Parts: sequence; structure tokens; C-alpha cells
Amino acid sequence: MKQRVFNYGAGPAMLPVPVMEQVQAEFLDYGGTGMSIIEMNHRNNEFMEILATAKALYRELLELPDNYQVIFSHGGGAMQFSSVALNLMGRHPDRKALFCNTGFFTQRAMEEARRFGKVEVITSSEETGFDHIPHLDPGMVDGDAAYLHITTNNTMMGTRWEEFPHPLPVPLVGDFTSEILSRKVDVSQFGLLFAGFQKNLGPPGTAAIIIRDDLLDCALPEVARQLSYKVLAETDSMPSTPNVFNMWVNKLVMEWTRDMGGVEAMEALNDKKAARIYGVIDASDFYTGHARKDCRSTQNYTFGVPNPDLLAMFFAESVEQGLHGMRPPLMRQDVRTSLYNAMPMEGAEVLATFMEDFERRHG
Amino acid sequence: MKQRVFNYGAGPAMLPVPVMEQVQAEFLDYGGTGMSIIEMNHRNNEFMEILATAKALYRELLELPDNYQVIFSHGGGAMQFSSVALNLMGRHPDRKALFCNTGFFTQRAMEEARRFGKVEVITSSEETGFDHIPHLDPGMVDGDAAYLHITTNNTMMGTRWEEFPHPLPVPLVGDFTSEILSRKVDVSQFGLLFAGFQKNLGPPGTAAIIIRDDLLDCALPEVARQLSYKVLAETDSMPSTPNVFNMWVNKLVMEWTRDMGGVEAMEALNDKKAARIYGVIDASDFYTGHARKDCRSTQNYTFGVPNPDLLAMFFAESVEQGLHGMRPPLMRQDVRTSLYNAMPMEGAEVLATFMEDFERRHG
Repeated sequence: MKQRVFNYGAGPAMLPVPVMEQVQAEFLDYGGTGMSIIEMNHRNNEFMEILATAKALYRELLELPDNYQVIFSHGGGAMQFSSVALNLMGRHPDRKALFCNTGFFTQRAMEEARRFGKVEVITSSEETGFDHIPHLDPGMVDGDAAYLHITTNNTMMGTRWEEFPHPLPVPLVGDFTSEILSRKVDVSQFGLLFAGFQKNLGPPGTAAIIIRDDLLDCALPEVARQLSYKVLAETDSMPSTPNVFNMWVNKLVMEWTRDMGGVEAMEALNDKKAARIYGVIDASDFYTGHARKDCRSTQNYTFGVPNPDLLAMFFAESVEQGLHGMRPPLMRQDVRTSLYNAMPMEGAEVLATFMEDFERRHG
Repeated sequence: MKQRVFNYGAGPAMLPVPVMEQVQAEFLDYGGTGMSIIEMNHRNNEFMEILATAKALYRELLELPDNYQVIFSHGGGAMQFSSVALNLMGRHPDRKALFCNTGFFTQRAMEEARRFGKVEVITSSEETGFDHIPHLDPGMVDGDAAYLHITTNNTMMGTRWEEFPHPLPVPLVGDFTSEILSRKVDVSQFGLLFAGFQKNLGPPGTAAIIIRDDLLDCALPEVARQLSYKVLAETDSMPSTPNVFNMWVNKLVMEWTRDMGGVEAMEALNDKKAARIYGVIDASDFYTGHARKDCRSTQNYTFGVPNPDLLAMFFAESVEQGLHGMRPPLMRQDVRTSLYNAMPMEGAEVLATFMEDFERRHG
């Protein structure tokens, strides 16, 4: 095997090496059954144990209050843009949902919500190119609305909410796709959290949803059975065959996260990686950080270089030196690089050193 | 590794051993990239080649006419119960769809269609316990309806349509989940075919949809973007991140199917397995076939034994002798056993021999 490379892609993203090796080792014969987990009935003890363990680890690692449930759905974060609206808009007679517009994925979620009801943007950072999280005064929030949707970490922008608006008169919905398990979060401030698997949870194609019990009963009539949170809760996330492979990998990723020291240890590691990389940007007149300092992500980093020629050289040289997966965010001329939980400190060091060297040679 | 066992489960089901071994071998490092396919951007050449190859193989193996497209969706067959209704009911002002009720999965599809529009059952074999495919005179079909839905192979019942109603005044929708690629089919008789991956295509969590071009534009307004056939067709099945793992395995299964001789060879193998197993049933006064002889599936076999004690012994002894995955269908007291494409003739021989021996000892 070729040495595994550091992959700074936004997702699908690097998964922990021990997890990948275990999947490979057990792929043809799960637990001595003579079958792969992907060839086995999902109601067999083997898969039921995977599902139960994964759920228990969400509860443990996210310190879930008792009145929250963990469910899983086919499709990633984008499917949840539809599901959230379909499952929660029933709380308001005119199906009104509120949004804080912090960039690409919030906009995608709004487009989808508009298909089913009314969308009201209560704050936005669009005017400054989504370089920050706009201030939100809870007093601005219409207590009648079905929910308020925020993207807690903005993959494309490199921004994240440092604190969440609280208390609110409506349920807060958080899209945690690109940062779940990367820092401590008080789940009780949210009515619902969701995350597509493909960054910190596992392979693409499945989403985890954490939902407060009282929100299981607010769906629009047109929600498909497979997307209904109530049905998913009632059927242990198996209204039909679940994605057994993704759940298996997810369970192993959750165990790895726990064994690494849990969310607290992940946050410390992510802060250390962030200090190293933002340190390079802040010490430089060559790199220009996109996100404002008071709302920088530790998962996605965005920065410009002085001109388009240098940008092209940056990408070309990074790949030559074995740093993979960096590319410009959609419709912007700068660099985005992603360092999720599975990226070790060594990967941050390699990137920071490359950036310093690139500046020295071209600055 | 323990020797791999024969698995007669209805799905998730056995996959071809060479496919499973290739996935294992390439799991940590796809094509010398130093990354797994599940960790890689889906717009990289590596994944785009997988997707294009898989699509081309559907076209080749199913001999698709030019005016049909191949698309893929998150979720399995059950998600398509919603998607078909959401995407095709727009053809009729009152959203009316027709169904031939041949058992469990047709009923599930009807329940889902009722959520979005009107359902009319034009034939049914419910009165005789779904032991056959009821006669359908194309003259009975209301030419105004949005579509006619049939389950071409009924997993739970062991029945299949020998011939499809043709010509029809409305598009015919075929749920091929449990038999796709198992026999030659004239796709031009259908407006739309779909199949969840988990039997003859790959791991659970994704569905393949074959759709005639003119049906891409009949959706109800409330179809979620991720489920819209039009959006899936326009975005090469990537309105967001696709299930890269399932698509990879699917591509390998399609290549294996081609290398085995294509659908024709699969049909011959399936007929040979069926002759052996139905031969045991037909020669016996001990086993009672559930499906009528004129509509027997080659993928799923259903039969009773003289009493409940013998049924329990049948399951217990089969597992003891290394025949895994057989169980009673929901709400019936008999045996269901499934032999999909990946089950070699040897697996049919082992099962038939076990059945003969069981009858000899207990008959």
C-alpha cells in the first residue's frame, strides 16, 4: 500500500486510520459469522448491537438530556434541509420558518424550506461576503414561527457561531454537519441538531438527528414515511433497511472519538491545530484570512493569496508535496482547507509548514 | 477468516465473493491515491469514473433504449415508494395512480402513494394469500391515470410477473428491487423501473432508477430536491454528495455480472437453481409451495412444512448445518429462502440436499 496521504478536503473527508483498518480487517467476516455486515439481515443481533452502541455513544459524547432522541436517516445534510422543514413547519399555521443567513448551506436550506412554506431571514452577513456570524438579538425572534435555522459551522466560509442565541421563544435548529463532535455544545439550547455523516461521523449518505421529544409531532402532511422523524423514532430508525455499512463505520468512529478522550479532547486538539494555522495567517501579510477573528472555524480554514497566479501555484505545489484535497470554495478565489477530528496535529503542522515555505518563496 | 457461509436471507444479501475481496483489498488506498474512496471528494476523477462506468453498465446489461436515463437516489426501495408518487402523480389532475396488489411491498407502496394522491387497485391476489399474479387485461386500465405500479417480483410471496401488461395507455412502473438483473426484461415496456441496491446491486441505502425521458417532468410541487428525478437527472445524481461506497460496490457488482455473461447467463443460472429447488418441492408431499407454478420467482422461494414444530426444527437445523438467513416471511408460518444472483449453484445444491434430507428424517 502507498502511504496514506493527508487529505484536507471539505468532505467526504479523512476518517481515523484505526477505524479504516478495522473495517478492512472485518469486512469479509463480521464477528465470526462468515458474512459481511453489508450482507446480513439488519435485524440480526450483530447489527442491532451496532445501532444501539452508536446511539448510546451519541448520548454519552454529546451529553444528551433525557428528553432528546437520536435517529438516523438516509441521505446526508442536504436531505435534512427538506426533512427539517417537512417535520417542523407544522408548528406554525402558515408554515413560517426563520433563518440566519450565514452562507451557502444556509441558502440551500432556505431554498428547500421555501418549497414547503414561508422563509424569513432575520439576520444575514451576505453584504460582507459571509465573513462573519451576524449578531442575533433573541428579542428579534418572532415567537410564533415554527423554528429558527442556523448553520453552526459554515464549511465554505470558515466561520462558526461562537455562542448560540439563547434563550429563544422558538426551537433552534442547528446544522452541525461540518463540526459535530469538534467542540463542546450545550444541546439543551437546541430543539434539533442534525449532521450529515461525511465529515466527523463516517461515510456520506446518512445523517444523524438529535431531536427533543416534543418536536416529533409537528410534521406537515406531505412528509414521506422514510423522512418522518416520528416514524424514524418509532421504528428505531428502521422503517426499512438502514444503511448498515455507514452505521457500522459511524459506530467505530464514535468509539474512536470516545477513546481519544471524547469531545473535550477533540476540542483541545482542534484548538491546537487552529492556533498553528491561524498563527501563520495572522503573522503574514501574504495570506488574508476570510473569516473574522471572532468567529473562525476550527474545521474549515479560508484565506486568500495575493493574486490568481499564486493561487494556482498554491494548489499545484500543495498536491506535489502530498497535501491533497484543497481547492477554492465555490465562486470564490481563495483557498479552503479542512481539518476535521480525524486529522492529526501532524497534518496541521505539515500544512502550516507548507504555507510558511510557500510564502517565503513567493512572498 | 472463518469460511464464508451460504446466506439465504432476503436482503441485505450475499454479494459476489470477488467483489467483496476487491473492496477489502482497495479499501484503504483507492487506485494508489493514498485515500479510501469513502474519504475522497466525489468530484475527483476516481469517483466520476466509477459513476460513469456503473451507468454505462446498466445501459449495456439492461439494453436500455436511448430515451431512458439511469439515476441513483439515497434510500432504498422504500424511499422510492414515496419518490415515484411525488415524481409522477403530476401527470393526473387528481393525482390518481393505479396498482396491482400482489402483496406486502405493493401495499407499502400504496400506503405511501395515498399520502400524496389517490390510489386505485385494479387487480389483487389478496383473497388467495397473494399466491399468484392476478390477470391484468390492459383494457381495464384507465388511460387518464398518472401511472400503473406493479411489484415485478414479490420477495415475501415468492411470486413474479412472467409477462408484463403491454401495451398500456399509461406508464408502467416496475419495482424490480428483488429481481433486477436476474432475467431478461424488455425495458421499453416500462416508463420507469426502480430497484433498491440490497439484493442484486450492492449494499443497502441506495436505489437505481431507470426512467423514460418524458417522465422527468411530471412531479408534484412538494417533491424534495434530493428526491426529484429531474434534479437527479440534471445533476448526474449528485445534487449533493452521493453514497460513494455503495456506488463503488455497485460498479463492481455490475462488472462481475457482465463478466459472468450478463443478464442472459444470470437468468440461465437462476433457472437452474430454481429447477433444483422447485424440483424438491414438486416431488414432495412434505413441502407445500406457496406460489402457484405459473408465477414462481427464481429469487425468493416460499414453502410450508406440515406443522409449526417441524417449521421450528427446519430453521434450527438449517443454521446448525451452516445454511443461514432463512426465516418465515412476516405474518406467515412458512419458509422463505432467497437465492439472488450472487448465490452460486453450489448454494442451491446445498439447500436442496438439506431439504431432501430433512424430509427423509421427518417426513
